[in-house]
Amino acid sequence: MKPFKHLLSREVAIKIIMETVQPVERTEAASITQAAGRVLAEDALAGFNVPPFDRASMDGYAVRAEDTYGASTFNPKRLSLVHVQHAGELYDGEVGSGKCVQIATGSSIPQGADAVVMVEYTRLDGGEVEIQRPAYPGANISPIGEDIKAGDAVLLLGTPLTPARLGVLAALNMETVDVYVQPSVAVFSTGPEVKPLGTALEPGQIYDINSYTLSSMAARNGCTPSVREIVPDERGAMESAVLEASRHDVGVFSGGSSVGARDIFADVVEDLGEVLFHGLQVKPGKPTLFGVVEGTPIFGMPGYPTSCLSNAYIFLAPALRKLARLPPREPRVVRARMGSRIVSSSGREQFLTVRLEDGVAHTVYKKSGAITSMADADGYVILPVNLDVIEEGEEVEVTLIE
Amino acid sequence: MKPFKHLLSREVAIKIIMETVQPVERTEAASITQAAGRVLAEDALAGFNVPPFDRASMDGYAVRAEDTYGASTFNPKRLSLVHVQHAGELYDGEVGSGKCVQIATGSSIPQGADAVVMVEYTRLDGGEVEIQRPAYPGANISPIGEDIKAGDAVLLLGTPLTPARLGVLAALNMETVDVYVQPSVAVFSTGPEVKPLGTALEPGQIYDINSYTLSSMAARNGCTPSVREIVPDERGAMESAVLEASRHDVGVFSGGSSVGARDIFADVVEDLGEVLFHGLQVKPGKPTLFGVVEGTPIFGMPGYPTSCLSNAYIFLAPALRKLARLPPREPRVVRARMGSRIVSSSGREQFLTVRLEDGVAHTVYKKSGAITSMADADGYVILPVNLDVIEEGEEVEVTLIE
Repeated sequence: MKPFKHLLSREVAIKIIMETVQPVERTEAASITQAAGRVLAEDALAGFNVPPFDRASMDGYAVRAEDTYGASTFNPKRLSLVHVQHAGELYDGEVGSGKCVQIATGSSIPQGADAVVMVEYTRLDGGEVEIQRPAYPGANISPIGEDIKAGDAVLLLGTPLTPARLGVLAALNMETVDVYVQPSVAVFSTGPEVKPLGTALEPGQIYDINSYTLSSMAARNGCTPSVREIVPDERGAMESAVLEASRHDVGVFSGGSSVGARDIFADVVEDLGEVLFHGLQVKPGKPTLFGVVEGTPIFGMPGYPTSCLSNAYIFLAPALRKLARLPPREPRVVRARMGSRIVSSSGREQFLTVRLEDGVAHTVYKKSGAITSMADADGYVILPVNLDVIEEGEEVEVTLIE
Repeated sequence: MKPFKHLLSREVAIKIIMETVQPVERTEAASITQAAGRVLAEDALAGFNVPPFDRASMDGYAVRAEDTYGASTFNPKRLSLVHVQHAGELYDGEVGSGKCVQIATGSSIPQGADAVVMVEYTRLDGGEVEIQRPAYPGANISPIGEDIKAGDAVLLLGTPLTPARLGVLAALNMETVDVYVQPSVAVFSTGPEVKPLGTALEPGQIYDINSYTLSSMAARNGCTPSVREIVPDERGAMESAVLEASRHDVGVFSGGSSVGARDIFADVVEDLGEVLFHGLQVKPGKPTLFGVVEGTPIFGMPGYPTSCLSNAYIFLAPALRKLARLPPREPRVVRARMGSRIVSSSGREQFLTVRLEDGVAHTVYKKSGAITSMADADGYVILPVNLDVIEEGEEVEVTLIE
């Protein structure tokens, strides 16, 4: 039974994790219908101009600009309407002097025309159109290649694919693009007391919770979780599991809530690779371990479900996002008043989970084993190491859990 | 060619949309490994207590509390260690007076013991344990049912399933739960100029962009997109499409960028159901339509990809979230300084897409057809109807696009 010797601060722990975890390099082809949230692994080069032709940016009439000079509401110019050009077609004649063609937004500009007069400034009068405002050459026309020029790298390698960027790829007729793979996260629960769902529990046993919370954390941070079998607190089994984890992009173990298991796990990681830290000056979540085996980052999370999950938000999620090449998630912080007096005497930085109600932060924390406390939480308040008391009504910053 | 007669404000339009759209009622069973982000369609009732037994909340020694009274570092009490209880097992003897059992966090409390002394306040000395602090009865013990009592409704119908809540379901051995279906969103692009990806374009034609941006918007707001064939600007085809849309939970049409198409679409919706509004006092996005056909909300979005997408963020996404029973997404707003002088003279509320750089908002807007402008945007500034100028350096609020 080894107590922790040296507890690391959150900042130093995060620094070590982020320096160790490197972005995934493997790529795969993905259909743009399936690529939302993925990260581009190539520069998207435009094969043609967008728009591919001079096009109207307004509904109206394609004209020769010079025919409109001097037009006004009281002194309109009259042009003869020679064609109604439907969307997707192109008038095969020429817009000569004194003539115009009705044209819709997005339509090709017919030959001879060099401006579009908005429909709002016109009046159709039989076969003629009254033009009530002058248009300069190029007015209401998007010239060929205005948005994207053939050969342009419109989206660069490393760009996360938002709806707008998927639209860019569609505009360029790219049905399939190369994206980075979603890193594989091996998730292991450990401990003989942890049982898979669907089995009957005996005294002292509990259901596996962490596999579910950790794998959903992996999925929401751009990774593919792979839940493995529960590992007994036995050295050989633990070694096999850590080696199996090292064949993924990252291995996440939870448990070792028993001291024996924790020691076996730490020893195994040290023997097969390197333990970079073990023990954090945070509450909950002291027994967190981080190491590297065969080049693969290995996380040892606390066994208690709430400690495991709150540490996953703070330490694991940023690492998974870097691995998946996703930008860091900016924490959303709101101010609130503390709903009750809080006394902290842990000597560790404390994450106090709270529920927000009308600007008041109510603590939902019951015991570190209570998974319901996290389920009710809207966010957490960080109590510094050296803070002893927050008075009721005192203003605090709540970092929202999203 | 009908110009719009009456342009609705954004607020009124959103009110009409949100009053019309009703949350989905259909449910389905889902494995909790696949249920992240889904919405619970039943109360989750606990079938048993959690923890299912009195358990240790710390590593240490299970003792009779009275044996520890008066203990201190300089005057420790000595207890004989009768058993090392491994995780998942339960000591079958009794912890008698003067005796203790080594116990791990999460373990069952053996018979006779009524407190746990943390390992930090003990010293193992051969077959005896020095207890250096007193423990009160119940110390470091989570009693049976402390977190969840058998019969409790721990999660209520309508709860979105976060990682923590999936953990609660796992704790309760619920591998499968009833969730609301992800509403089906039929997505139609319209217009003869719009061509599917992979086809060769002729003059005046462009690739379908909106199907991709709209369907990824549907997916990220809890819905299942169903992209349908491009609809020509022809009344019969438009009628079939609108009727097909009415068999989904919502129908989203884009296009009618040509005035003719817009008129046909509006007429068809009016004939088959009801147009609730047509024409918004916003820029871009004036030609937005909203109606109901056979009880199904129908959106007519602008054809220009950026107008379509920016209106999707503002008008469609909140509706889809209500439909899917997801909570509204709180817009994240940051303050920035405008990077250049902006003159607005549209007489409409304007959404100015911007890129943020060192606290400065640079406009990325080129022309309303330029899909790249949205791809580069971090957010948008809303310019009120009656605002004419924003000076360079003036402070603005930027709503982030997420």
